[in-house]
Amino acid sequence: MPTHVFEPTYYHHTFGAHPPVLHIAPGDTVRTTCVDAAGQDRTLQQVTPRGNPMTGPFYVEGAMPGDTLVVRLEQLRPNRNQAWSGAVLAANVVDPEDVPVLAQARGSGRWLDWEVDLASNTARLRSTVRGLEGLELPLEPMLGCFGVAPSRGEAISTATSGPHGGNMDYRGFKEGVTAYFPVQVEGALFFLGDGHALQGDGEIAGTGLEISMDVQFSVDLIKGQHIRWPRGEDREYIFTVGNARPLDQCVQHATSEMLRWLTTQYGLDIQGASQLLGQCVRYDLGNVFDPAYTMVCKMPKKLLQRLPTRS
Amino acid sequence: MPTHVFEPTYYHHTFGAHPPVLHIAPGDTVRTTCVDAAGQDRTLQQVTPRGNPMTGPFYVEGAMPGDTLVVRLEQLRPNRNQAWSGAVLAANVVDPEDVPVLAQARGSGRWLDWEVDLASNTARLRSTVRGLEGLELPLEPMLGCFGVAPSRGEAISTATSGPHGGNMDYRGFKEGVTAYFPVQVEGALFFLGDGHALQGDGEIAGTGLEISMDVQFSVDLIKGQHIRWPRGEDREYIFTVGNARPLDQCVQHATSEMLRWLTTQYGLDIQGASQLLGQCVRYDLGNVFDPAYTMVCKMPKKLLQRLPTRS
Amino acid sequence: MPTHVFEPTYYHHTFGAHPPVLHIAPGDTVRTTCVDAAGQDRTLQQVTPRGNPMTGPFYVEGAMPGDTLVVRLEQLRPNRNQAWSGAVLAANVVDPEDVPVLAQARGSGRWLDWEVDLASNTARLRSTVRGLEGLELPLEPMLGCFGVAPSRGEAISTATSGPHGGNMDYRGFKEGVTAYFPVQVEGALFFLGDGHALQGDGEIAGTGLEISMDVQFSVDLIKGQHIRWPRGEDREYIFTVGNARPLDQCVQHATSEMLRWLTTQYGLDIQGASQLLGQCVRYDLGNVFDPAYTMVCKMPKKLLQRLPTRS
Amino acid sequence: MPTHVFEPTYYHHTFGAHPPVLHIAPGDTVRTTCVDAAGQDRTLQQVTPRGNPMTGPFYVEGAMPGDTLVVRLEQLRPNRNQAWSGAVLAANVVDPEDVPVLAQARGSGRWLDWEVDLASNTARLRSTVRGLEGLELPLEPMLGCFGVAPSRGEAISTATSGPHGGNMDYRGFKEGVTAYFPVQVEGALFFLGDGHALQGDGEIAGTGLEISMDVQFSVDLIKGQHIRWPRGEDREYIFTVGNARPLDQCVQHATSEMLRWLTTQYGLDIQGASQLLGQCVRYDLGNVFDPAYTMVCKMPKKLLQRLPTRS
Repeated sequence: MPTHVFEPTYYHHTFGAHPPVLHIAPGDTVRTTCVDAAGQDRTLQQVTPRGNPMTGPFYVEGAMPGDTLVVRLEQLRPNRNQAWSGAVLAANVVDPEDVPVLAQARGSGRWLDWEVDLASNTARLRSTVRGLEGLELPLEPMLGCFGVAPSRGEAISTATSGPHGGNMDYRGFKEGVTAYFPVQVEGALFFLGDGHALQGDGEIAGTGLEISMDVQFSVDLIKGQHIRWPRGEDREYIFTVGNARPLDQCVQHATSEMLRWLTTQYGLDIQGASQLLGQCVRYDLGNVFDPAYTMVCKMPKKLLQRLPTRS
Repeated sequence: MPTHVFEPTYYHHTFGAHPPVLHIAPGDTVRTTCVDAAGQDRTLQQVTPRGNPMTGPFYVEGAMPGDTLVVRLEQLRPNRNQAWSGAVLAANVVDPEDVPVLAQARGSGRWLDWEVDLASNTARLRSTVRGLEGLELPLEPMLGCFGVAPSRGEAISTATSGPHGGNMDYRGFKEGVTAYFPVQVEGALFFLGDGHALQGDGEIAGTGLEISMDVQFSVDLIKGQHIRWPRGEDREYIFTVGNARPLDQCVQHATSEMLRWLTTQYGLDIQGASQLLGQCVRYDLGNVFDPAYTMVCKMPKKLLQRLPTRS
Repeated sequence: MPTHVFEPTYYHHTFGAHPPVLHIAPGDTVRTTCVDAAGQDRTLQQVTPRGNPMTGPFYVEGAMPGDTLVVRLEQLRPNRNQAWSGAVLAANVVDPEDVPVLAQARGSGRWLDWEVDLASNTARLRSTVRGLEGLELPLEPMLGCFGVAPSRGEAISTATSGPHGGNMDYRGFKEGVTAYFPVQVEGALFFLGDGHALQGDGEIAGTGLEISMDVQFSVDLIKGQHIRWPRGEDREYIFTVGNARPLDQCVQHATSEMLRWLTTQYGLDIQGASQLLGQCVRYDLGNVFDPAYTMVCKMPKKLLQRLPTRS
Repeated sequence: MPTHVFEPTYYHHTFGAHPPVLHIAPGDTVRTTCVDAAGQDRTLQQVTPRGNPMTGPFYVEGAMPGDTLVVRLEQLRPNRNQAWSGAVLAANVVDPEDVPVLAQARGSGRWLDWEVDLASNTARLRSTVRGLEGLELPLEPMLGCFGVAPSRGEAISTATSGPHGGNMDYRGFKEGVTAYFPVQVEGALFFLGDGHALQGDGEIAGTGLEISMDVQFSVDLIKGQHIRWPRGEDREYIFTVGNARPLDQCVQHATSEMLRWLTTQYGLDIQGASQLLGQCVRYDLGNVFDPAYTMVCKMPKKLLQRLPTRS
């Protein structure tokens, strides 16, 4: 299968039916780069306005509405030695009464600097923060924002998320993971960006360790498989992603999507799927910062593999 | 330290200032039993009305409002070989459009039966469910509902939860875990019950594998330490628990409580705590079924232990 | 029908199965008084701790779980010439980013004073607030908090609300209105308090014009009519009350309750009720400040009266 | 001022930076027509796909980001004698447990027909619904969906709403009302459509009485006045509109916007605005059906006019 190398020269701030930068075929691999959320590239040059600029879109030959786009995140590699992060927690993740103390603590400095050491795979806080002198954290690179063009001719801000994916800020979207998106326009039109060298659940400080990245991914198609929300799988789990507000609705979207997955592809009826989910499901929190929040519904592959009807 | 053995003869369906069944001292250990959520004991006799009947309350000598009650869950052992579970997912955890298909799938049978094998530590589904013939799942016993008497003279149903704890249905409350509750009345008045042999995140089928249990716990007091929400710790994490609706508010309660913990006991200011949380926090989902939902905010102990100011 | 005069000597801070202060019969009238939310009586003496102290409970002869208690608010009369109000908006009713400016504006003074003139039926702001010099507002007295003892042996704080009524802070509960509550314990056990001389929708400053009151109400029973949420009616509307969080859930509770009302007592099926609701329903906002919020679903009586099946 | 007559030949299903159909100047009046939500015109011909097709966009000369677009709804006139409505309540406005009975009641027929009599200003239900035989309701024509192009190059589906306006389904947007929108692109790009001959609060049956309309509106500009959310005014009230989910967040957006209005244009500080809002605010419910819900925060003009600083 061919490997395309694509170096972006401009970026998009919406997921929409923009002219493709490259046509690729199912099975192809792409090596490309993403700027950070502020539009800064590997040399720390700001090459495009801030706000999750996206690389792409990539047109996948043969993709039609009603298909599923498969994206394998083969390599997610920070490509510079400097990252930045929000200084204090976001106002919406603490009790309203605690917001003033956050505002006060932020003071004039909104951003902190981190030194990223790719050799040792760690990030070291360079800004002076009391109690964190010399703090080093191991990297866990992930993509904060990626997905496909939405339906209806919409062009949706890369600040938010939806059935098309988008700014989900889920730390489970890391190297080795396969993501599935509902194709909603011809060619699918895949975008990616918003690299994080590290991020906790929820992106509750409003950022991860924001950084530019070298990315390698491959694509595939599942023709005629209609899904409603992004899905994914890693070594241990299959998972579904609900993007909405409040989180209660994210849970509903992700759980309904998992119910559809289990009942259509694992030989289970509603009672069977309910039992497995009820006793074995796991949920992860994507972002609780962006306009739409994200919850992830996960089922262990090991459990599904040993289902009587699967053996 | 003395070990008390207490066999309950009646149960409570509210957390309130009920007459204590036993006075115990900080450091004491209690061995007792809990009926299941339906009021059935180890012999499957229904000995009290259904609805999370609680064993207790236990009066802890010296506990006063403003203190923290420490409860170590030393042993959580299912004590019979039969458990039951809800047949289908709860109506509120799926998209509203998917509710009718759940209702239809439930049909006449609301409950399924499980055989629990304490020797092999597994549960086997006895009810006939297509695709799950012979399904065996490993047990992970947990307490669904426990906590202390609330303030203001309230008596709060064991169906729900709040700052006092209650029906949190968090699978992290298992053997070996220490829980912390804000003491709100003299003696703290600790209650426990609602054993689950196993339960996924969210208790999304409305139950876990409901079972009676033998429980051993010990108590302690942290005098003068005022906390607002339940806290806990296991080997890997310290955690805080927010109980409310919607989940967004649970996140706020739990995160604010963790912020207080980190800034009062770990030498961090708001910026320092924000950085650690932002890049390293984990959230777990307690129940999304009961009147109040539950989210848990977790921080890795390993990370906190190597903070410069803690070394 | 007899009229009872009852002067309270103590108050309750929970809705619960407290010993009744008076036994009354269906059809009876009661004249009594309520202290304000801070426990101050008509002489501005604090006679009980703050936090919506309730007068009552009144035991209604013959009331049994499954019945409906009818309460006619015959007179709601502020009985002193001084009221107080919260100084700034509550933190939870503005965007999180705007909370710091509220905190700053509140400064040291949390409460403002109002002079109430019962003759002219107006309130005049006595505290100095820029731009409001000499402000006079017409009174619209209402009861912020009233209801019945809940089920299950619960004792629920008068800070919040639920199926039993409670701290709904709905300005529609004013003189001349009839309220309906689901009887959940023998005798119903009716409580009332938290008078407001005036209040906007939502109680968004955290208070109305808080004042003590002389109240006259009468009670009746609808035997065997089971309702799930408080209902009411005034000259123009019948209405149902949903108490929960978030407001979306209040809408669901109130709308489901109205659907039950229309389909059981107005000769409509689901489609008929849906059409009338869809084109003619009105919603009012009760509180968006307390732990549980309140939404009210209203249908015009005039419309219902001219339904073909009602003529 | 000139009056433009514009007859649309195509329609848009997103609010975005589409090529303008007409350039107009501040002060100009436009007479045009809107198809109904299903794309049917005055002759009941479907002339464009369903889903709130919009007439426009109209480019307003001189409008720049940071200005406010003023739109006066001078005439909203249904232009045919047939309307349609959803058959049963939307699944998300009732308790989850009540969803199955709605699904059952809907049966095969999703839509009901109404005969609209423009002479008598009434709608008569033509479909057979038990209990509603011969039902006639007075018309209250309104625009369900209108607004301006959003920022960031977004193109937002006409199914939802946001700071740009959109599918707010607020029955207060009727003839005689002035609406204000934040200009976010050069020329503002104003769209309008989704006429309802009548609709209750919340659009809880998922539709109003859907109908095509003749519309006359005029536009104006407030240069340099930056607003964040739609605003409006009628004879009695000024109002602000918050579009989001859950409703709690709508309340926050609308209240924050009203706070900004009162403190920037009515000589009030935060305490003054808080007092007026706290005691006198009204909220109306826009839609609780679309992806984003809508709440409206209203203040009586009479009250504001007699503020000391305004006299």
